[in-house]
Amino acid sequence: MESLGVLLLHPLDTYLEQELDRRCRLLRLWDAPLDRRGEFLRAHASSIRAVVTGGGSGGGGDAALIDALPRLEIIACYAVGFDRVDLTRCRERGLRVTNTPGVLTDDVADLAVGLAIAALRRIPHADRYVRAGLWKANNGHYGLTTQFSGKRVGIIGLGRIGLAIAKRVEGFGCPVSYYQRTRQQQAYPNYTYLPTVVQLAADSDVLVVACSLNEQSHGIVSREVIEALGPRGVLVNVGRGAHVDQPELVAALAEGRLGGAGLDVFEAEPDVPEALMALDNVVLAPHMGSGTRETRKAMSDLVLANLEAHALSKPLLTPVV
Amino acid sequence: MESLGVLLLHPLDTYLEQELDRRCRLLRLWDAPLDRRGEFLRAHASSIRAVVTGGGSGGGGDAALIDALPRLEIIACYAVGFDRVDLTRCRERGLRVTNTPGVLTDDVADLAVGLAIAALRRIPHADRYVRAGLWKANNGHYGLTTQFSGKRVGIIGLGRIGLAIAKRVEGFGCPVSYYQRTRQQQAYPNYTYLPTVVQLAADSDVLVVACSLNEQSHGIVSREVIEALGPRGVLVNVGRGAHVDQPELVAALAEGRLGGAGLDVFEAEPDVPEALMALDNVVLAPHMGSGTRETRKAMSDLVLANLEAHALSKPLLTPVV
Repeated sequence: MESLGVLLLHPLDTYLEQELDRRCRLLRLWDAPLDRRGEFLRAHASSIRAVVTGGGSGGGGDAALIDALPRLEIIACYAVGFDRVDLTRCRERGLRVTNTPGVLTDDVADLAVGLAIAALRRIPHADRYVRAGLWKANNGHYGLTTQFSGKRVGIIGLGRIGLAIAKRVEGFGCPVSYYQRTRQQQAYPNYTYLPTVVQLAADSDVLVVACSLNEQSHGIVSREVIEALGPRGVLVNVGRGAHVDQPELVAALAEGRLGGAGLDVFEAEPDVPEALMALDNVVLAPHMGSGTRETRKAMSDLVLANLEAHALSKPLLTPVV
Repeated sequence: MESLGVLLLHPLDTYLEQELDRRCRLLRLWDAPLDRRGEFLRAHASSIRAVVTGGGSGGGGDAALIDALPRLEIIACYAVGFDRVDLTRCRERGLRVTNTPGVLTDDVADLAVGLAIAALRRIPHADRYVRAGLWKANNGHYGLTTQFSGKRVGIIGLGRIGLAIAKRVEGFGCPVSYYQRTRQQQAYPNYTYLPTVVQLAADSDVLVVACSLNEQSHGIVSREVIEALGPRGVLVNVGRGAHVDQPELVAALAEGRLGGAGLDVFEAEPDVPEALMALDNVVLAPHMGSGTRETRKAMSDLVLANLEAHALSKPLLTPVV
């Protein structure tokens, strides 16, 4: 695929960038100053046939970008979520879209469970307490926390990641319920299907967002859902910030109407509301669900394999469109 | 047991203290100033028939205390570990000793897994990073961490807590090996027995201390074990600080000869070495393995039930001696 002109929208992974540079004709959008990127795109429009983008902050693939690149053939997402790509426009233009499912499932599920335990057992708070010398200053005293084993875990979206979370929390004796648009009760007899997210929240101690972001799931964790989860409930979000009504979440946490939260994603990341940073009942993570050396290598290899397949007119490995 | 004189050595749990006060004749050692406790014990020696003590910092039950209390009949530990109680002297004196096994197993196992994920995925570090505004300042960048799923977990001590840890990490696809003095390979065909701790460490990515503290296990995580675990290995300690050669541990972590650690216990807690507090590759917790509201209530009830049984000359529920 030496002749394939690839536009990388933002820095992702060093290995991926090196390999793209080695195997394709790579252009980096951030080589152009912020106010000159339109010119940059026009100057290179005739050679750009592929776009590579991430899923979180800075991810791209909207209609404006697509329209600016008349020779574009494929958008390869270095992420499982492709909510920043305008699929309708891609279909109209006959563009292909790929993502990186599967390879990041374990990491995201691990982080979801890690955030749940960290929030209930207050691990980062405890770490701060010890480092600040408060354990000694308070004669070995530290307040009590909340048990994780046996807590009712509700999962929004029982796809690959949701199932991996369910499998993990079963080892902790946690009963699992789930919600999703298409009922899968027959396939998962050990898990309880609930027909609405409000019911799921009301029946859960820990509510985990593990679905993809689309029009139906945007704002799915509404004020009503947060109220149903309640002052002893904990929200874990490893999906997207836009799944949650963030101002309501922040208010509920600050006012004690929600017990706690473990958040890997935010509405306008890397912006995190100041009010969240001041709270001890939350655990905050910098969208690092898939951020391990092992998985980022696998994600890079899958992006490269999809581009390679496209260049050779072979079937894409993980096509979205 | 209204007539039972009970000496509580240090503040443990509010509920336990209230119930002891209500049901027995409770004396609090800390009511006496530090330099008058000898006098306090002499003044009350004729009425003290039971001692209640914790397992961590401040825990007691040494020969000096036992010898100071000629009417003592029972030492009830509010802990699963009874390493601070002089069992030899207890046997010589015909004293009974109880602990609180079982009820805290889930919590300690949860914390062990939580600390392992937190250390590999750097959850407290990430939380500090976001709260300090560094995520935004660095344009959404955060470094990569290490995957937990599939890592080889080695467990020192496959008792109740070790088994509960093994069961949990199986859900993450982690192969489990273990060491203990008495081989139990036939009972646990899914777990690999290794005949020495050095071999266990060499074959593990994550080494978890989950055995009881006694003469054989004191310092069981030696310099040699730490070297075998190596620069990519992570030590999790939910046992006792004295299981580990702490100066060697601190030096290995600071010099990168050990990859990381999740520590709930320390040699002279609540004293934690300053050098540990400065490290980003460790997660520090204030001996909170059993520190949930749910479990501390169950532990208190078990201490009370043992004292009640003793007072009524019925069989003890969880006798050690």
